[in-house]
Amino acid sequence: MPIKNGAEYVESLRGRKLKVYLFGQLVKEPVDHPMIRPSINAVAATYDLANAEPEMAGAKSSISGLQVNRFLHIAESAEDLVNQNKMQRRLGQLTGTCFQRCVGMDALNSLYSTTYEIDQKHNTKYHSRLKEFIKMIQRENYVIGGAMTDVKGDRSLSPSQQPDPDMFVHIVKRDKKGVYITGAKAHQTGCINSHWILVMPTMRLKGEDKDYAIVGAVPVDAPGITYIYGRQSCDTRSMEEGDIDAGNSKFGGQEAMIIFDNVFIPNELIFMDGEYDYAAMLVERFTCYHRRSYVCKTGLGDVLIGAAAAIADYNGVASASHIKDKLVEMTHLNETIFGAGIASSYMAHQTASGNWQCDDMLANVCKHNVTKFPYEISRLAQDIAGGLMVTLPSEKDFRGPETGPLLEKYLKGRKGVSTESRVRMLRLIENMTLGRNAVGYLTESMHGAGSPQAQRIQIARQMQLEYKKKLAKNLASVKEGETAEISQENSEYFNKIFGVRKKGKQQ
Amino acid sequence: MPIKNGAEYVESLRGRKLKVYLFGQLVKEPVDHPMIRPSINAVAATYDLANAEPEMAGAKSSISGLQVNRFLHIAESAEDLVNQNKMQRRLGQLTGTCFQRCVGMDALNSLYSTTYEIDQKHNTKYHSRLKEFIKMIQRENYVIGGAMTDVKGDRSLSPSQQPDPDMFVHIVKRDKKGVYITGAKAHQTGCINSHWILVMPTMRLKGEDKDYAIVGAVPVDAPGITYIYGRQSCDTRSMEEGDIDAGNSKFGGQEAMIIFDNVFIPNELIFMDGEYDYAAMLVERFTCYHRRSYVCKTGLGDVLIGAAAAIADYNGVASASHIKDKLVEMTHLNETIFGAGIASSYMAHQTASGNWQCDDMLANVCKHNVTKFPYEISRLAQDIAGGLMVTLPSEKDFRGPETGPLLEKYLKGRKGVSTESRVRMLRLIENMTLGRNAVGYLTESMHGAGSPQAQRIQIARQMQLEYKKKLAKNLASVKEGETAEISQENSEYFNKIFGVRKKGKQQ
Amino acid sequence: MPIKNGAEYVESLRGRKLKVYLFGQLVKEPVDHPMIRPSINAVAATYDLANAEPEMAGAKSSISGLQVNRFLHIAESAEDLVNQNKMQRRLGQLTGTCFQRCVGMDALNSLYSTTYEIDQKHNTKYHSRLKEFIKMIQRENYVIGGAMTDVKGDRSLSPSQQPDPDMFVHIVKRDKKGVYITGAKAHQTGCINSHWILVMPTMRLKGEDKDYAIVGAVPVDAPGITYIYGRQSCDTRSMEEGDIDAGNSKFGGQEAMIIFDNVFIPNELIFMDGEYDYAAMLVERFTCYHRRSYVCKTGLGDVLIGAAAAIADYNGVASASHIKDKLVEMTHLNETIFGAGIASSYMAHQTASGNWQCDDMLANVCKHNVTKFPYEISRLAQDIAGGLMVTLPSEKDFRGPETGPLLEKYLKGRKGVSTESRVRMLRLIENMTLGRNAVGYLTESMHGAGSPQAQRIQIARQMQLEYKKKLAKNLASVKEGETAEISQENSEYFNKIFGVRKKGKQQ
Amino acid sequence: MPIKNGAEYVESLRGRKLKVYLFGQLVKEPVDHPMIRPSINAVAATYDLANAEPEMAGAKSSISGLQVNRFLHIAESAEDLVNQNKMQRRLGQLTGTCFQRCVGMDALNSLYSTTYEIDQKHNTKYHSRLKEFIKMIQRENYVIGGAMTDVKGDRSLSPSQQPDPDMFVHIVKRDKKGVYITGAKAHQTGCINSHWILVMPTMRLKGEDKDYAIVGAVPVDAPGITYIYGRQSCDTRSMEEGDIDAGNSKFGGQEAMIIFDNVFIPNELIFMDGEYDYAAMLVERFTCYHRRSYVCKTGLGDVLIGAAAAIADYNGVASASHIKDKLVEMTHLNETIFGAGIASSYMAHQTASGNWQCDDMLANVCKHNVTKFPYEISRLAQDIAGGLMVTLPSEKDFRGPETGPLLEKYLKGRKGVSTESRVRMLRLIENMTLGRNAVGYLTESMHGAGSPQAQRIQIARQMQLEYKKKLAKNLASVKEGETAEISQENSEYFNKIFGVRKKGKQQ
Repeated sequence: MPIKNGAEYVESLRGRKLKVYLFGQLVKEPVDHPMIRPSINAVAATYDLANAEPEMAGAKSSISGLQVNRFLHIAESAEDLVNQNKMQRRLGQLTGTCFQRCVGMDALNSLYSTTYEIDQKHNTKYHSRLKEFIKMIQRENYVIGGAMTDVKGDRSLSPSQQPDPDMFVHIVKRDKKGVYITGAKAHQTGCINSHWILVMPTMRLKGEDKDYAIVGAVPVDAPGITYIYGRQSCDTRSMEEGDIDAGNSKFGGQEAMIIFDNVFIPNELIFMDGEYDYAAMLVERFTCYHRRSYVCKTGLGDVLIGAAAAIADYNGVASASHIKDKLVEMTHLNETIFGAGIASSYMAHQTASGNWQCDDMLANVCKHNVTKFPYEISRLAQDIAGGLMVTLPSEKDFRGPETGPLLEKYLKGRKGVSTESRVRMLRLIENMTLGRNAVGYLTESMHGAGSPQAQRIQIARQMQLEYKKKLAKNLASVKEGETAEISQENSEYFNKIFGVRKKGKQQ
Repeated sequence: MPIKNGAEYVESLRGRKLKVYLFGQLVKEPVDHPMIRPSINAVAATYDLANAEPEMAGAKSSISGLQVNRFLHIAESAEDLVNQNKMQRRLGQLTGTCFQRCVGMDALNSLYSTTYEIDQKHNTKYHSRLKEFIKMIQRENYVIGGAMTDVKGDRSLSPSQQPDPDMFVHIVKRDKKGVYITGAKAHQTGCINSHWILVMPTMRLKGEDKDYAIVGAVPVDAPGITYIYGRQSCDTRSMEEGDIDAGNSKFGGQEAMIIFDNVFIPNELIFMDGEYDYAAMLVERFTCYHRRSYVCKTGLGDVLIGAAAAIADYNGVASASHIKDKLVEMTHLNETIFGAGIASSYMAHQTASGNWQCDDMLANVCKHNVTKFPYEISRLAQDIAGGLMVTLPSEKDFRGPETGPLLEKYLKGRKGVSTESRVRMLRLIENMTLGRNAVGYLTESMHGAGSPQAQRIQIARQMQLEYKKKLAKNLASVKEGETAEISQENSEYFNKIFGVRKKGKQQ
Repeated sequence: MPIKNGAEYVESLRGRKLKVYLFGQLVKEPVDHPMIRPSINAVAATYDLANAEPEMAGAKSSISGLQVNRFLHIAESAEDLVNQNKMQRRLGQLTGTCFQRCVGMDALNSLYSTTYEIDQKHNTKYHSRLKEFIKMIQRENYVIGGAMTDVKGDRSLSPSQQPDPDMFVHIVKRDKKGVYITGAKAHQTGCINSHWILVMPTMRLKGEDKDYAIVGAVPVDAPGITYIYGRQSCDTRSMEEGDIDAGNSKFGGQEAMIIFDNVFIPNELIFMDGEYDYAAMLVERFTCYHRRSYVCKTGLGDVLIGAAAAIADYNGVASASHIKDKLVEMTHLNETIFGAGIASSYMAHQTASGNWQCDDMLANVCKHNVTKFPYEISRLAQDIAGGLMVTLPSEKDFRGPETGPLLEKYLKGRKGVSTESRVRMLRLIENMTLGRNAVGYLTESMHGAGSPQAQRIQIARQMQLEYKKKLAKNLASVKEGETAEISQENSEYFNKIFGVRKKGKQQ
Repeated sequence: MPIKNGAEYVESLRGRKLKVYLFGQLVKEPVDHPMIRPSINAVAATYDLANAEPEMAGAKSSISGLQVNRFLHIAESAEDLVNQNKMQRRLGQLTGTCFQRCVGMDALNSLYSTTYEIDQKHNTKYHSRLKEFIKMIQRENYVIGGAMTDVKGDRSLSPSQQPDPDMFVHIVKRDKKGVYITGAKAHQTGCINSHWILVMPTMRLKGEDKDYAIVGAVPVDAPGITYIYGRQSCDTRSMEEGDIDAGNSKFGGQEAMIIFDNVFIPNELIFMDGEYDYAAMLVERFTCYHRRSYVCKTGLGDVLIGAAAAIADYNGVASASHIKDKLVEMTHLNETIFGAGIASSYMAHQTASGNWQCDDMLANVCKHNVTKFPYEISRLAQDIAGGLMVTLPSEKDFRGPETGPLLEKYLKGRKGVSTESRVRMLRLIENMTLGRNAVGYLTESMHGAGSPQAQRIQIARQMQLEYKKKLAKNLASVKEGETAEISQENSEYFNKIFGVRKKGKQQ
């Protein structure tokens, strides 16, 4: 029976025998744990939006023939990619946090085209297996996590060179029915809230790393998997009484470490097995999608801009020119991110497999702005909020018989605004700039889908300096021989941009 | 006979009896003036590109039924707008300067939809007149200038309040055949290089400003028009012997002041006459198109990045990590501008007249980045260029019998690079960061289509704070009454973004 | 018996009957409360440094004739002010947090000169009273808090116009022996850790606000005072077992709200009473000192740069060029703050009372950089740290029998570095960029001593535009009459800068 | 007869038989060349200020016992260094350009201490020779240029490895009376306006580069010297009729290339000859002084802020909040530069020779800000100026009989301001942001005294990461062994900062 909405989704997670550790102890039922539950609520919102806005957050899939959740949809046009961005922004607005499903969506899409190309070259069957898997998850309406980031050990060594071979997930055993994998994946977004996990390699591999070139699907509750929950700033506020100090008591993100100990993957769920020369393609396509997926943060930005505008209003300073100017600046930065994301999605091209891949340069530009602008938006929100945000007493003090009346008297803002509303708004800003959701809005914006330097490297690979030098030499009337020996460009960015796909015509 | 290419275009400008003043004297033939010619060459490039790349720089018009230059095309889809951006970037790459035709294109498109709506309300005939005019210019393949910016006098007074009524162009006389206008337009891009000029009001008007609510087409050589040419940094280098010190000897921009003294506009070329309440619509639609048209500067950015990469190569430092990082930064900023422009074009909507209007928020975000990033790209180019850029001797010294050999000996760069190539590249960077084309790349990027503050005001009008406050209140569980009395939003940005056009559904 | 060192200081705080509320309950003994103690430790460090570095952190006072803690010293030279900055940076380095004593130091110094000038005009005795008070606290070696920021109520109304008169602290009763005050002060740094509090008005006052023009000293445990402790991000981690997750388990800041209910101040401890026209002078001198006191944050910056360098080392990436470049950038920003602070202190002038006042323009410039650069330093530290900083499991998981060995295996960094060291360093960076000390390093840097806009207003008042316009007109050969009607400048900045104190000579 | 004022200085330059080339031709008398003269006027201002402000711009020298121009003074205290900064800012205010004398001042001071230390080690006589030279120039009141930057050829090769040995100035012959040098120095500020030139090596040298380790004084008109004048943006405007279009018609900078062809230096004017191991010390001390000398640009910043304020006033927008805010931002950036410079001068230490050397870290921080902030100040000035700045007609058009009245009518600003004043102010802003003095305000700010990367390298060498890591480890309670193997720090910055000069006490 397919999952039909957020409430059913939450129920679908109950009763699984997951081995989840938090504060050194096994968690009995994650669904009921007050610190975990907000992250489940955020995923649930992706189900409800698909019902409320079926065109934006859903799509008709030509694979299963069904109307499916967009997170499970293989992009059939550039517009499908643009719609991903719209849905991401909207969910960011509704939850104010990471809703944890983009990794799975981006993994499915990059695997879709990569398996096709592996099959073309190696005469394998990965693509049709993947399509079967997709049909099943579309039908059941599951949540898919994508497990890519290995713990890596000594970063100067390749997977097979590590003293401890488990620093990257790899095949430790194989039999007729499938393979067994061991290793660990760090920073796994929403993994405990998923039904299935797609295990993938994390980097370019060489021949000697063959055992590390493994892609497959495992159920979240497969034997041999251990989860260790990651701490977040102010996480335990979710476990306190009351709902004010948490700032956003309903929604939160989730990151955990997954440890695989001889976890079995049956043959029919293996989508790469030893084709090490395709690891780089998979990773690059995935990060290309995923860097542009950070458009979600513009939805969080909308919330934070709204919170800043509200607190300015509560403080009675909404009409000060410097306040208005700061709100404009926040908006300008937020929409700058959005612009690059939309442009990347729109400037997509069709892959050999038929699905659509967004533009790499613009995806990296989008993400690179995400590593900076949310920090500045956050700084401006704190500027507008005022210092009270970090010196406010606890909710218990507001409820206390002695302290409550004092705080009510002394912390009132402008007429017509309750002290509680003011406190709630300040706590939301704290939540997004220092607290639990600052983790997602700031630090994850920095490192998710690759740290800033990774984008700079990718921008460098796309930037076609030889093409640009030629433009300059042309205008400077430099006619010398050295223009002949042009180094090879890594990219065809300008061919794509200018829509001139025939070779040799661009200059 | 239609103009078929750049060369024919240049010839088409000869022999007109324009009254053009430069350095206090009448210019005999602008086409042959060494300081004016580079600006004509830049316009000529727009003809040649339309031939070389008919899909990007041309289009089939459903008005005339002809394949026309894209600068004369009324946008029939969002993709048409995206293609404008592509063409703009490409021409920026090919000329390294302002090619002066976007104002006309953007004016035609904003007039197209505005005249339609005036007619709907006032039962006038402007739209069909305009279509006739468009047919004619498409057939003849003319260059159209758009004259908007009045000199304005005392900025605290409206047009009709000015002590001198001529501070804004206005009707001074009318007869059966048409009207006569007087006034002056400042900073008129490429006006002398045009065949026709569209005269338009520059701001929101009121009932008492009726005589200022005039839109019409006049030929560039109409009786009563005087042009006074604007100076640019290093402009006279174009008049020196040699072609090195100019930096970009072939291409330049053009700004002049146009003074109208009783200039006649016949009835059939009048597209607004007294409908003051539509002046604001015209101006807003025009600036919306035009702010996004500044994507052209990414083409200049490409040239400057190429020049910086080339000089780094000539200096033998191309592989230094800080040099590579600066080139990445320049590229990142340049593509960030591009992203917002493309997103604005793509997020277009169809007007009542049937043509397409780009998104206002994203157009303003695009332009606002243009008021900053070219300055930073320029600073980085100067960083990479080295100090020699501003201490280089003159071309005459390089040619001098005593000084030439000394400079040849002492200014050589790395092996295999001629001193002349190095000097030429430095002069190009000087041209774009301090010299003649810095005017277009920097200062015009700042003020063209509205100064930075104008964009901030427009972003403020689009930013929908009430919508965003509601998002924040929802997450902070603020439930008080004040959410009811929501102020009116100026914009439907999020409705457009999320593609949910039915009212009241967005939250 | 004077307090001789940090340990004695801690003991001096015991057994006072303070009414401190935290989480809705009275705190029995703040000294022993695990969440409060780190803030006490930070103050204790100011005692120990005065012993270790008597020249930097102490001084010979000509008031008491004793060698005193520099926080209790009235500046007798510009060098004394420079030494304040050195001490502040050093304490920032040693504690990584706010050590809470600058407010008292800056209040004493600004009161010193202001009381002198009140006495000169009003023939009062405040200055000698203050000197007696200073002698006493120097002798006893007490900690002095300065209570300035009122809760303010409706910000558009003056103190006496507020519907509730208690929105600003004011005199509610007076008798022969003294006065009684009521009201509340927000964001009171280190108040509970002080021995005495100097109560001061928070803004410019008018004649009708006379009862609000009250300055006096009250013991921290005076009857009628209630303290409500402010929450900080991650504050309860100090109450968890273990010392890792807190990040900096030893040191923290403290902000509380102080509520005065009919608190008595005896005549001999009153330093202003009704001289409303001197409130502005007091506030301006205080903020001038205090904005420059934010040099302390460069000491925190040093710690964070060190932490980033250490984690880069642990991760094995210390030699990557982009890492090195980011450390340089962090240092550059940090030292830029320092430079402006030192310049402000050095460019001091002597007041009528004989003590020294730092330069106002440069103090504001220093603080204004503090409202931005720590955020960027923090962003760069998170960049270098990597995503693990926000996904690390808890200390309990590292100690757990099942999870400990797994984490030990999978989270090891480069050879020779223990997993625990790596975790500890990441937790320190979390502490300073998201956690408890981020409150002081970021948000307090934003709002302490006045929010960013307050500095911009003060810079505007100092910037002498008429003087600068004259410079420009001189070079542009503008000779017109309008230069005669020069508006009054608020400031004599350039007279001070150029050391030319005779009037009318500067241009 | 000593030179007594600016006028006498100008006369002192006449009649020298300098071989100066400009536009391929020998200049007859540089003093009378309209393009050269503004640079001479700027130097003349240094004489007049020394008379007007003898304490700021002059000093009593203990070498000659005379009151001397501060540019010829050896710093005898930290205050002397601070006074250099004051004088530099003041001259920047008075000239709006580079006054060309800091190189000589900084060269004399760095040679003073370096020759002393060479003598100590090598038992040479350079220091007493230099003192004799200083006595003479102080007595005669001469202008001293410092020639450091060699043309360098292939930057990957050391001086002695170059295919052409003349890429660095070196000794080509020696006889009993002295040595003969050949080579070329690029970007020589004010060289033609000097009386003597100090020739110095440009970088760290090794044993095989001994012939390049030459320091000596040569008169500007020594046989064998050729000067080739460098072009600047808009340079020929100084040769046009009228004084408006030049923007700042009176003052300009000067950069030329100096070519030495067997130029003789007598023994008594040689201050280093073969002591290659001291080349690095000389260069480092010189750049340390000189990077802080860029405080001069704050004087230019004052002019540009004044010009922006004046044009805002002329345009009638001076009270707009965004205009005021931009003026505050410009001031804030300008004073931030000033702060770091003053701090560097104040934090000086005494050298073995007895003179004072400013702090290296803070000098580099100051200069690094100078490579960025003037560009932003310039951008903001253009923002405030409006687009007219780059579209203004020529002065000849304003004087023309047809065009003059039209421009007078149409370009008037607010009431009470003449069109000419408005135009003059715009031309001054053009001059400083695009024109002749933009070269000094922007590009020279970038590259003078070392390009940005040179400062980053020097900041890296001073930043004491091991010290800072130790601070972090202390707070994070990291106790492991690795802290023992601390790498050597290059710098004693914190020892100096904290005034704790005894070893091993800083932590």
